[in-house]
Amino acid sequence: MNPLNPSFAEDVERSFRQQPIMDLIGARLLLVEPGVVEITLPYRADMTQQHGYLHAGVVTTIADSACGYAAYSLMPAGSEVLSVEFKVNLLRPAQGKTFLARAQVIKAGRTLTVVRADVFGIAGNAERELLATMQGTMICLRNNRIRE
Amino acid sequence: MNPLNPSFAEDVERSFRQQPIMDLIGARLLLVEPGVVEITLPYRADMTQQHGYLHAGVVTTIADSACGYAAYSLMPAGSEVLSVEFKVNLLRPAQGKTFLARAQVIKAGRTLTVVRADVFGIAGNAERELLATMQGTMICLRNNRIRE
Amino acid sequence: MNPLNPSFAEDVERSFRQQPIMDLIGARLLLVEPGVVEITLPYRADMTQQHGYLHAGVVTTIADSACGYAAYSLMPAGSEVLSVEFKVNLLRPAQGKTFLARAQVIKAGRTLTVVRADVFGIAGNAERELLATMQGTMICLRNNRIRE
Amino acid sequence: MNPLNPSFAEDVERSFRQQPIMDLIGARLLLVEPGVVEITLPYRADMTQQHGYLHAGVVTTIADSACGYAAYSLMPAGSEVLSVEFKVNLLRPAQGKTFLARAQVIKAGRTLTVVRADVFGIAGNAERELLATMQGTMICLRNNRIRE
Repeated sequence: MNPLNPSFAEDVERSFRQQPIMDLIGARLLLVEPGVVEITLPYRADMTQQHGYLHAGVVTTIADSACGYAAYSLMPAGSEVLSVEFKVNLLRPAQGKTFLARAQVIKAGRTLTVVRADVFGIAGNAERELLATMQGTMICLRNNRIRE
Repeated sequence: MNPLNPSFAEDVERSFRQQPIMDLIGARLLLVEPGVVEITLPYRADMTQQHGYLHAGVVTTIADSACGYAAYSLMPAGSEVLSVEFKVNLLRPAQGKTFLARAQVIKAGRTLTVVRADVFGIAGNAERELLATMQGTMICLRNNRIRE
Repeated sequence: MNPLNPSFAEDVERSFRQQPIMDLIGARLLLVEPGVVEITLPYRADMTQQHGYLHAGVVTTIADSACGYAAYSLMPAGSEVLSVEFKVNLLRPAQGKTFLARAQVIKAGRTLTVVRADVFGIAGNAERELLATMQGTMICLRNNRIRE
Repeated sequence: MNPLNPSFAEDVERSFRQQPIMDLIGARLLLVEPGVVEITLPYRADMTQQHGYLHAGVVTTIADSACGYAAYSLMPAGSEVLSVEFKVNLLRPAQGKTFLARAQVIKAGRTLTVVRADVFGIAGNAERELLATMQGTMICLRNNRIRE
């Protein structure tokens, strides 16, 4: 996929640094390519649900940001990106030493971009297990028009 | 809707206290009725995305926990609840002084329960605005059988 | 909800008549109000799946058209509507003498409209049972710009 | 993926023949492998919406049956399969001389199976275009227990 914005990688990185939630949960941007973004997150006990698994909301947080930035990487310079909707299937309890969300654009449109993200749990021995998968829609806003 | 578990409210409250993520984000259980749960969350700048709105992942976190506990309130004593899947439509940028997720069971089954949650932003003047809506499926696990 | 298009009802009816699939399955437009549309469908054995229930795809067909026209009823004159995405939870096997899809707009935007539809099975004694619920997004296209 | 049912292909084919809706729309089973099913559908004008594109409900019908049978191919002999939920993103107006739904199991569980389907439009020159993508959940029912 061809990026319209030659500084897409810097723009994604700058925007990512402007998401305070990423600091709160300890997420880091791992990879930015045209239409593909990876975010990594170390396990922390204070982000779990009642059985000690990573809360589905945190799984969603990294999947959604990965999807948003994968879409953003293909948008023209000066755009903004917002999530329109997403659906998450939780395949297994979210266990792992670290977690990885990998998002990939399925179809980039002028206004709407459809993205998919897989979230993996990575054990101490580096084995990966698919924990969840997201299918979502992102919208491109030009001229900072965020509220209709 | 008739609860099968006479101590459903205490069980929901105990399980909620066992979700460390709720502490991390500052969420509080506001209401527990058979098939209905409300969770409230004060705005905090460290939970926002790049435009200063509450991150969609945090919106999802309280919606998912509200859905899970609304389903759980109708399950037999000794069950466990896990999220199977959910879909979230983000209707407006998530602004507010506080946020409220209100979940309501649509159909409670022996194994699967379908739940809907609305997330509202509440301004300083107490005005409510619908920000997002979730439609999801929860699964009832008996005898603590969490991993298949 | 206030319609922007004074002839919204006629426009919905005309567009509905232009959907050949509605004829094929025997669906009829029952109600058109601003932001609300109902479609009814008599049971037919040739629209069922392997257990004799209405196929989920047919349930979806009437839910999707109801959602599309509920959204369309609030769009400006001269627009076109297309489905962006939808999610359907199937709550019970689709039994009934007739079926009713009732769609209601949750949030109408300039570009995107979020709609919900419930599909009911109606027995011979007129009793209604909720079979499925859809949550979807519709897009408003101006000037017939259907392909990006 | 390893089939538990040695006659999975025959069982899928028999069940497919028992779906009258497939006859109504002219759909044909093209491929059955463990965890993978393809269904093909020739274009017909009587299955379109108001702009002449295949109705999203018909796109969903073949995607849902493909997902159901992909899941079914991995279930033990004597099971039944039902759709729990699905989400469809419609990427482009559904044009084509024929359509192909290809479903692939993402995670097969004892009770729930998560499946993805892509629906392609195939032009006269055999070029494929991705039109829609579904992510859904199927449930395995043993002993014909279809209604809870």
